[in-house]
Amino acid sequence: MSDVRLTLEEVRDLAMRGLRVSGVSQENATVIADVMTTAEQDGCKSHGLFRMPGYCACVRSGRVDGKIAPALHDDAPGVIRVDAQHGFAAPAMAAGRPKLAEKARAQGIATMPIVNAHHFAALWYDVDALVEDGLVAFAFVNSRSFVAPAGGIRKLYGTNPMAFGWPRPGKPPMIFDQASSASARGEIQLHLRDGHSIPEGWAIDPNGNPTTDPEAGLAGAQLPFGGHKGAAIAMMVELLAVGLTGCKFGFESAQDENTDGGPSEGGELLIAMDPARFGGTGDSTATLAHAETLFSEILQEEGTRLPSDRRYIARQQTPTEGITIPETLHKTILECCET
Amino acid sequence: MSDVRLTLEEVRDLAMRGLRVSGVSQENATVIADVMTTAEQDGCKSHGLFRMPGYCACVRSGRVDGKIAPALHDDAPGVIRVDAQHGFAAPAMAAGRPKLAEKARAQGIATMPIVNAHHFAALWYDVDALVEDGLVAFAFVNSRSFVAPAGGIRKLYGTNPMAFGWPRPGKPPMIFDQASSASARGEIQLHLRDGHSIPEGWAIDPNGNPTTDPEAGLAGAQLPFGGHKGAAIAMMVELLAVGLTGCKFGFESAQDENTDGGPSEGGELLIAMDPARFGGTGDSTATLAHAETLFSEILQEEGTRLPSDRRYIARQQTPTEGITIPETLHKTILECCET
Repeated sequence: MSDVRLTLEEVRDLAMRGLRVSGVSQENATVIADVMTTAEQDGCKSHGLFRMPGYCACVRSGRVDGKIAPALHDDAPGVIRVDAQHGFAAPAMAAGRPKLAEKARAQGIATMPIVNAHHFAALWYDVDALVEDGLVAFAFVNSRSFVAPAGGIRKLYGTNPMAFGWPRPGKPPMIFDQASSASARGEIQLHLRDGHSIPEGWAIDPNGNPTTDPEAGLAGAQLPFGGHKGAAIAMMVELLAVGLTGCKFGFESAQDENTDGGPSEGGELLIAMDPARFGGTGDSTATLAHAETLFSEILQEEGTRLPSDRRYIARQQTPTEGITIPETLHKTILECCET
Repeated sequence: MSDVRLTLEEVRDLAMRGLRVSGVSQENATVIADVMTTAEQDGCKSHGLFRMPGYCACVRSGRVDGKIAPALHDDAPGVIRVDAQHGFAAPAMAAGRPKLAEKARAQGIATMPIVNAHHFAALWYDVDALVEDGLVAFAFVNSRSFVAPAGGIRKLYGTNPMAFGWPRPGKPPMIFDQASSASARGEIQLHLRDGHSIPEGWAIDPNGNPTTDPEAGLAGAQLPFGGHKGAAIAMMVELLAVGLTGCKFGFESAQDENTDGGPSEGGELLIAMDPARFGGTGDSTATLAHAETLFSEILQEEGTRLPSDRRYIARQQTPTEGITIPETLHKTILECCET
């Protein structure tokens, strides 16, 4: 199977065409195409054009509204709620982000619940613009039920990623974005496809026994990272992204699912803080310079790196080198671009 | 070695006497005695009277100011900063908590950095009153450098616990409080004392090799829970508790240490959210009732429990049964109570 090489402009054009033809509005398609293009630019293939067929299929099936505009609700001085109105999360995120940043600067801290949203983007993308803008930010999003609670054997929590970002003057921000599960579900699926066994600790079979068989693991439940502590993080994400926002827990939305490959409907919670409002000086220069000493301490040892560094290396290379996708994916995407 | 049985009233009296004699003000001693008494009541021995000698010694050595009153600074509508002024964190927490709750209700979300504080209490205690009061709350606190960063072998991060609490109407709150390290440092010390090897994954020796020898592990570095994901959590706690508050990172405060057994000076960050301010209804009843369905789903499986449940079982028993401490500890505490 050979690969197709594309420039980032070609990635964006393909994404726009496919989304528009599938029934996504110009405004929403612009945002979603940027998510996929930025992911390809950063070498984050799992959230790049790989997602294109899913985006298009769930709009075509009518499960996700590609044309709807998000609605903003100013719930409190520190709370801006964005109702995605059963559309994708990315346009909701884009619509609310400036207001969240404004509130964070005014109040010191602010939060943005996103409700009735289909989240299909990389979570680091959601905090990236806020953190580039000098804010400290968290994001929490739930997913379908795949992960067993501590002590349990049934799928209950989503793979529930959380992201956290810290601004770095003159440098791209430190951002981590990590699932609460030991592995991505897609990694287990890749092991199954390639006939490989999965590492211990990733999943249990339907009887709750540890398994290295990817098929049994997919039928059973994924395990949280780091045992009961990771399970606590998964529960926290479920409570923040769903409980606090008033959306559906993974176990409640299972019945709404079809097989179009798109994301389930759920909630997301963003929290943004302005470091300039901590300490009474109105200036974040000293705070951010101080944090750089921690990063220097981390990086002075061989073998260490900051969580986002790999993305930033790719970010430098892809604008000139372009990106590649498998020919089969390219063909599917071209099909998405036809009426 | 036999145990001494005490009522909770006797615990509180002993704590008060020892703290007062050691040079802690009546007001500060009242708060700190409540931390230790509540820990004993909840069966959380590691933060009960076990801490008494450390509290007394670091006041007697002059490293911690037991008499200082915390100072509150209203940095922003959503930020109340408490300067512990080189005293213990618990009185700072108690002084700022009502203002943090007031701000969270007014703004929807608020944060409380605590600076120049010696944190020696259980972190769940810090969120407990906020969550009992109907708020969702986070707490992050740093400690001395004990934990290696991802890919590194040197002690850099603290064991850096985070706590998260969710209110439950008519029930004690769901609260988890977990270190970012795979194990508590004290657990490794107990294994050393008892001549046991430690499990793999807890620590590396000074050369960076995995070790099951507690002595080598204490000399080397502790490992984060859950590999690089736990390391990211440890880094996040360091950035929130220290970076954002403007205190000293663990690697910076090492030079200020002595051997009095008390805590290092650092920072803490609390975040509180009012669920009634999410969704525009002004009422959290439906939100909290909905979250109960998640807890029910978790608990319907045999073998599961919520993170704080063990404490709440003890909480019911100790008021009538009392608690026990080793006779040697009791003797040391009585010595603390002498001039």
